[in-house]
Amino acid sequence: MPTAPTARTRIRRQAERADFDRATLYAIVDAAHLCHLAFADDAGVHCLPMACWRIDDQLYLHGSNGSRMLKRADAGAQVCATITHLDGLVLARSAFNHSMNYRAAAIYGVCERVADAAKPAVLDALMDKLAPGRSRQARPGNAQELAATTVLRLPLHEFACKVRRGGPEDDAEDLALPVWAGVLPLRLAPQPPQPDGAYAETPDYVTGWR
Amino acid sequence: MPTAPTARTRIRRQAERADFDRATLYAIVDAAHLCHLAFADDAGVHCLPMACWRIDDQLYLHGSNGSRMLKRADAGAQVCATITHLDGLVLARSAFNHSMNYRAAAIYGVCERVADAAKPAVLDALMDKLAPGRSRQARPGNAQELAATTVLRLPLHEFACKVRRGGPEDDAEDLALPVWAGVLPLRLAPQPPQPDGAYAETPDYVTGWR
Repeated sequence: MPTAPTARTRIRRQAERADFDRATLYAIVDAAHLCHLAFADDAGVHCLPMACWRIDDQLYLHGSNGSRMLKRADAGAQVCATITHLDGLVLARSAFNHSMNYRAAAIYGVCERVADAAKPAVLDALMDKLAPGRSRQARPGNAQELAATTVLRLPLHEFACKVRRGGPEDDAEDLALPVWAGVLPLRLAPQPPQPDGAYAETPDYVTGWR
Repeated sequence: MPTAPTARTRIRRQAERADFDRATLYAIVDAAHLCHLAFADDAGVHCLPMACWRIDDQLYLHGSNGSRMLKRADAGAQVCATITHLDGLVLARSAFNHSMNYRAAAIYGVCERVADAAKPAVLDALMDKLAPGRSRQARPGNAQELAATTVLRLPLHEFACKVRRGGPEDDAEDLALPVWAGVLPLRLAPQPPQPDGAYAETPDYVTGWR
């Protein structure tokens, strides 16, 4: 179900690319390993990459208790978490109409701290996003490790997605120009796994990493 | 030559990954097609993806004159432009030591507007970054198109890079655990070009897109 744009999620530039549908948002979030988190403190505005993952209608972030970003976010600072997948370069016949294909989502809000008792299950979900089933294979966090980790959640309530797909959109008078036009696609592609040592058995998420 | 960290670029978490070397910064910027630009306005903190490119010691951004972000940046707002390349998932034997390999740069400052007379050359540099030589092939921007475009530059003066490479770093007592550990690498990889029409000649940047 689409949500209504707010004053800060309304998309004015190339509004035909705007998408407020929750399914679009979830697909963008679930395909991402990281977001860029913007927040402000006394030194100004910051923008830092962070791992992110989703459970239901919450985006989760985590890090060391000492992290400046997590301390600010935990103290009730407004944040904006943005995810962008770059899907290709769009080469048009005119310089002006060059573009990129992408899927982006910006999520606004205030983070809530995840209670200690809920942390293990939430962190297992991150592990199983990286590598399905791995939360039952790796050594779980011990009390000290869990205590050193802050986990925050950002409600997926106020957001805007923007998506561009397809080929170049040239002006009609440019279509006959003798210049190559089209899309140079990009994909964040798995490369051959690099084991740290030798293993008798290789998990499915490693053999399937291609 | 490394620059000295400032109050907002000093890296406190995993400081061994910090890098203030200009060569590291330039390599990260030059490998990127986009950055995430954080800025604040009356509605709060925003974080939006933007194309970016470098000439000498300046990061360039552009967009429609009407863009909220460009209007704010052009009005002297402090911004933070961050670029992150995700290079892989690092699977350690313990949940706590899981990580990611990445190359990230955060650039702080205030943008300056590029004068109209300088815009064509600066935009040509973007075009030639996307596709070397293309600025002499595509139809150049006309007066109306150039007038509709704001080009800003952000000096590459105050920045911090953070880079993680290599395999998992497990605690010594975890090394004998019977769980696969290693890196699942990722790369933003070119996919087969998608021409918009048929062409007698294909430029090198298309045939070489692999």
